[in-house]
Amino acid sequence: MTATAQTSFNPGKGVGQPVGVAVLGMGTVGTEVIRLMQEYSDEFAARIGGPLELKGVSVSDLEKPRPGVDRELLTDDAMSLVQRDDVDIVVEVIGGIDFPRRVVLAALKAGKSVVTANKALVAAHADELAAAADEAGVDLYFEAAVAAAIPVVGMLRRSLAGDQIQRISGIVNGTTNFILDAMESTGATYEDALAEATRLGYAEADPTADVEGHDAASKAAILASLGFHTRVTFGDVYCEGITKITAADIEAARKAGYTIKLLAICEKIEVDGETKVNARVHPTLIPSEHPLASVKESYNAIYVDAEAAGSLMFYGNGAGGAPTASAVLGDLVGAARNKVHGGRAPGENTYANLPIADFGEAITRYHIDMTVVDRAGVLAELAQKFADAGISLRTLRQEEGERHNYARLVVVTHSAREADLQKMVEELEALDDVQRIDSVIRLDS
Amino acid sequence: MTATAQTSFNPGKGVGQPVGVAVLGMGTVGTEVIRLMQEYSDEFAARIGGPLELKGVSVSDLEKPRPGVDRELLTDDAMSLVQRDDVDIVVEVIGGIDFPRRVVLAALKAGKSVVTANKALVAAHADELAAAADEAGVDLYFEAAVAAAIPVVGMLRRSLAGDQIQRISGIVNGTTNFILDAMESTGATYEDALAEATRLGYAEADPTADVEGHDAASKAAILASLGFHTRVTFGDVYCEGITKITAADIEAARKAGYTIKLLAICEKIEVDGETKVNARVHPTLIPSEHPLASVKESYNAIYVDAEAAGSLMFYGNGAGGAPTASAVLGDLVGAARNKVHGGRAPGENTYANLPIADFGEAITRYHIDMTVVDRAGVLAELAQKFADAGISLRTLRQEEGERHNYARLVVVTHSAREADLQKMVEELEALDDVQRIDSVIRLDS
Repeated sequence: MTATAQTSFNPGKGVGQPVGVAVLGMGTVGTEVIRLMQEYSDEFAARIGGPLELKGVSVSDLEKPRPGVDRELLTDDAMSLVQRDDVDIVVEVIGGIDFPRRVVLAALKAGKSVVTANKALVAAHADELAAAADEAGVDLYFEAAVAAAIPVVGMLRRSLAGDQIQRISGIVNGTTNFILDAMESTGATYEDALAEATRLGYAEADPTADVEGHDAASKAAILASLGFHTRVTFGDVYCEGITKITAADIEAARKAGYTIKLLAICEKIEVDGETKVNARVHPTLIPSEHPLASVKESYNAIYVDAEAAGSLMFYGNGAGGAPTASAVLGDLVGAARNKVHGGRAPGENTYANLPIADFGEAITRYHIDMTVVDRAGVLAELAQKFADAGISLRTLRQEEGERHNYARLVVVTHSAREADLQKMVEELEALDDVQRIDSVIRLDS
Repeated sequence: MTATAQTSFNPGKGVGQPVGVAVLGMGTVGTEVIRLMQEYSDEFAARIGGPLELKGVSVSDLEKPRPGVDRELLTDDAMSLVQRDDVDIVVEVIGGIDFPRRVVLAALKAGKSVVTANKALVAAHADELAAAADEAGVDLYFEAAVAAAIPVVGMLRRSLAGDQIQRISGIVNGTTNFILDAMESTGATYEDALAEATRLGYAEADPTADVEGHDAASKAAILASLGFHTRVTFGDVYCEGITKITAADIEAARKAGYTIKLLAICEKIEVDGETKVNARVHPTLIPSEHPLASVKESYNAIYVDAEAAGSLMFYGNGAGGAPTASAVLGDLVGAARNKVHGGRAPGENTYANLPIADFGEAITRYHIDMTVVDRAGVLAELAQKFADAGISLRTLRQEEGERHNYARLVVVTHSAREADLQKMVEELEALDDVQRIDSVIRLDS
């Protein structure tokens, strides 16, 4: 297909003006961004109203072969590249925090719009970056920072801008979803499922950021900020990974009609008459019939509850070179349209300025699996403990224990303050009749 | 929560400037739009950078009580209202085509941005409306025209603007999905399920536009236009409704592992080396494990295949006052931001200018259920017919017929040209050994 310039897009306002692009980083995402920019250059020109021109690509190793890119475009001096006069938009796909922060700030200060896929950077330094973008009157886009090709950033910034978001919950890390799904579908241990994920390229050599929930926590910070028009940073997010989830937990959940997913949950909560924001990441039991339960392998999905829209779900590839490049290029088209036709994208808007709730103030529900002494009166004693703490029980199930004289007790609470539930578990642990707490997993409330 | 003007949104560029809004129509959607605008006026002001001011509401009956709206804002003269100097943005939620077309064109010509929820209007007259918007340099938004609160218009216009969309398929009509779902879950006949949908308010008194697929066809035209950067209008869409679907069809589909959904399908196809666009609406058998198969009741879902993003699905409320108002208000915030801060939304861009494929050129698959004479050699004769036509079979199942001497034959073809499949069915019907064709339903290919 040949794209022509017969566009009706803001006609007469600079159609044909080229837009200079610098790409920082040529890993999986950067390589794909450059490839697609070149392959579909006519399409981009028609959609933007002017051609994209690749002005330079920064790489750390200039000697490495880079098929598909003219050698003269390569540089190892990102800082100079982003300040060049012929560069209008900078695409940052390096990863890490410190260096990208400095180079993105330099780009913004030099009047370049920035498109970044860097969730850690945005979750840590959004205020500073947004201020620099506002100061310079340029755009800062980061659709690819959350759930890659699933356009949740655009949805929160624009589509739901007229609605009141009540809650966002989602599977936003493909690695951990792959591991949990593998454990559920094959009965594998955590260690074996992680090894398989590594072998298939779903987990990195050092999987810490994924399995400990840090990656999901960055995304939760971004989602909460956008959804609630306030500032939530990485450090504000309670974060618990999946490393303690056992095959037994998964099996017990399955039998009870639940699936265990690593959820990022963002909520507004009322604490003593004050509205606060809570963002958290932890393994979560969700009913098997919930739409998020059917998200398999490394897919991501975001579930949004809004006052007028009701429940919405967005599902797709949450990682990988091509899906991330799709989001980066969508942002690039947006930033380039603004360069050609004027206007700015909606920026950060944290007017609501909500305080961050302590995690203890969050309202959660617990699924507690414990081994207790099998004697008359234990059940009554434990039930009384819960009653004394003001925590009501939804279900309580006693089963034969693995060892003689011990019983297994599975308790599901109703919603309560996280701090009260934590205290309850500590008190249970201290009881002589409780041999051990086998697992505590939160349920989606 | 009190929203303040401490917004960092394009600071210094006219923060505080009020935006005048006229709402045309006070049905379910209009009433909800006005209510939410008023209830969350502080939020809107903070998000936009200036307050929304309701300048007037046009209604057909001035005598009817309109709780929640000052009487002096009401008028039955929409045409004058949209041209008033104090109106910046017109929200059209009247419905119908002829009058809305005239009043929307008048508004655009008078330099007002327009937000409409009117799928029939957009699907029939997009070119004319887009030209008027471009001429005046204003915005034309219509997120609510497709699948209400599911932000598929924004996704196609912006988020996926850097990707190549290959196919869009979706459940975009809640009424027909409710009816088909009720037939499947209760075994009800079409007539009974329709009656239930009407009783519950999911179907209108005259359900023609829904059950004949016209509503879905309007949405298909809009989706195909946006997704493929070309113009597809209502008349270009092949359209077949659900009125001929029987309880027996549903039951047979269920047994074979399929669910019947009314799908809107938009594809680019190659015909003799030329890329054409095909948009169609028809009952479709989809495998029960496909994500679209689990869309229940009146929910909508859109499934998009894109080159880089891969498969994406968007799910939510596709109709109703509040979900539609959510989409309208998101558009209203976008249009108002542009009025306050400058810039325009990406407009219509039909640069690809693809020819429309004849429906006969589309590539489809058939599920044919027929009654044949039960004698030796019939199967071979029919199989030969398919082979002669160059249509290969995926499955062929023979069952005992309802009447003595007749057999039931269920054939599922591989993909073939729609015209060849239609001709095949005509030839089968003409055969002496074929007593009747009981049903022909397409499968999602």
